[in-house]
Amino acid sequence: MNPILANSAIGIFDSGIGGLTVVREVMRMLPNENIIYFGDTARVPYGIKSVDTVKQYAMQITEFLLERKVKMILIACNTVTAAAENEVKELAGSIPVLGVIEAGAHAALESPQRHHRLAVIGTLATVNSDAYAKTLNTLSSETEVYSKACSMLVPLAEEGWTDNEIAELTLRSYLEDIKNMNIDALILGCTHYPLFKDTIEKVLDKPEVAIIDSAVSIATMAKKELEQRGLLNNDPHPDFKCYVSDKPQRFQELAERFLGKKVDDIEVVSLA
Amino acid sequence: MNPILANSAIGIFDSGIGGLTVVREVMRMLPNENIIYFGDTARVPYGIKSVDTVKQYAMQITEFLLERKVKMILIACNTVTAAAENEVKELAGSIPVLGVIEAGAHAALESPQRHHRLAVIGTLATVNSDAYAKTLNTLSSETEVYSKACSMLVPLAEEGWTDNEIAELTLRSYLEDIKNMNIDALILGCTHYPLFKDTIEKVLDKPEVAIIDSAVSIATMAKKELEQRGLLNNDPHPDFKCYVSDKPQRFQELAERFLGKKVDDIEVVSLA
Repeated sequence: MNPILANSAIGIFDSGIGGLTVVREVMRMLPNENIIYFGDTARVPYGIKSVDTVKQYAMQITEFLLERKVKMILIACNTVTAAAENEVKELAGSIPVLGVIEAGAHAALESPQRHHRLAVIGTLATVNSDAYAKTLNTLSSETEVYSKACSMLVPLAEEGWTDNEIAELTLRSYLEDIKNMNIDALILGCTHYPLFKDTIEKVLDKPEVAIIDSAVSIATMAKKELEQRGLLNNDPHPDFKCYVSDKPQRFQELAERFLGKKVDDIEVVSLA
Repeated sequence: MNPILANSAIGIFDSGIGGLTVVREVMRMLPNENIIYFGDTARVPYGIKSVDTVKQYAMQITEFLLERKVKMILIACNTVTAAAENEVKELAGSIPVLGVIEAGAHAALESPQRHHRLAVIGTLATVNSDAYAKTLNTLSSETEVYSKACSMLVPLAEEGWTDNEIAELTLRSYLEDIKNMNIDALILGCTHYPLFKDTIEKVLDKPEVAIIDSAVSIATMAKKELEQRGLLNNDPHPDFKCYVSDKPQRFQELAERFLGKKVDDIEVVSLA
């Protein structure tokens, strides 16, 4: 077995552009790391697909990243984490794998009260998997979790409609139940959803409710893990390479908008 | 080469559930035909994908249908027709192939005036291909065509939101330009769009503008073609078999709502 090298890249993947919210936080917290991003833009969205299909896609992407000798894999997609985290970990062997769900769950339980009332919004697949409730209940026995599928948010984000009237009306429809609940925190259970953070805050209109963005938590966990393993890199000019399975016209534009910098190293690869 | 048999099925395919609008019209006009439907629900939506990716998917589905000895193939998807109609025809050899674009174009030019002003709405891929303008211009030299991509309509249809306030607001945004134009007809350049017909009529608010549903035209063309070839079937209890590449929870429910009858013969197959 080859040793894991500090100057190898961190591999981050998602079904589309949503995982770039994770890339953004990793770049902020670990500015000297090489990063390889894989966005499965030919097969987005995952959230309406079956568990078996999502597992198959996740295995293909994991193999692709392992061939590129990544030192760590971040599953920047809640649907994949819910459906295939164990399979990805098994395939990755000694390479550490972190998923967004555990990261988000830890962050949601950080507030000081003993009893937690939480709401999670995510794709249909994530909600049906009940993955947040299961993870939260293993971390804290006194947690109530309400989950709500919001299937239109990924297409809206991919269209670039995150703060117009249609996004607001869609969120009003999805968050109606949650607005009437007495919750401590709302978990954004999909990596596309931080793009709607302002609109969600406006529609929810409850400043006392914490909005949990798991991108921040997973970046924190990644930093800690790399420190513990002595695998931090110190490259002053690290690489950022994107692979996509199809090149929608908007990928580069949206990636640059998300990351606030030029993204020109984008390669189209076919996995199927 | 095997002869084409009248009691073989008509093969109809689409990226998802949209092509069921074509199935509905074929059932109405050709009630004694066996039908095989393929919905590529694992890879829906096609409209945001590249031409090469759509071509590859279309070839896989065509091969699948040919293995099932269909006597005719209807491409019930504008994105596929625009990207891969020639390739599907070549692969199908002597089996007749009809695409929705030519069908829709013929219907749009049926009105008696000499000069036609038309608008087409479709997916990004269909609009970028310019396929309607090209086809319309070969049929009539005096035709002006305005095209508009409406990326959110397929996700809205797959969510079942075709006549709520969000669908209306989305259509108001997309149809704003077209409302101010002096057009004779609006072509629904995507087989999902007939589901929004009532909302489109309401938003457009121009009873003098013909709304062209290419499902009706392609069913008419299919009937004529089968008559000419002596391939009409007369089964009083024909089969309707659906294949999907993934089974979203809503497929059966939506299919039954579209077709107004029980749909229980649904099989999941993997093409990739």
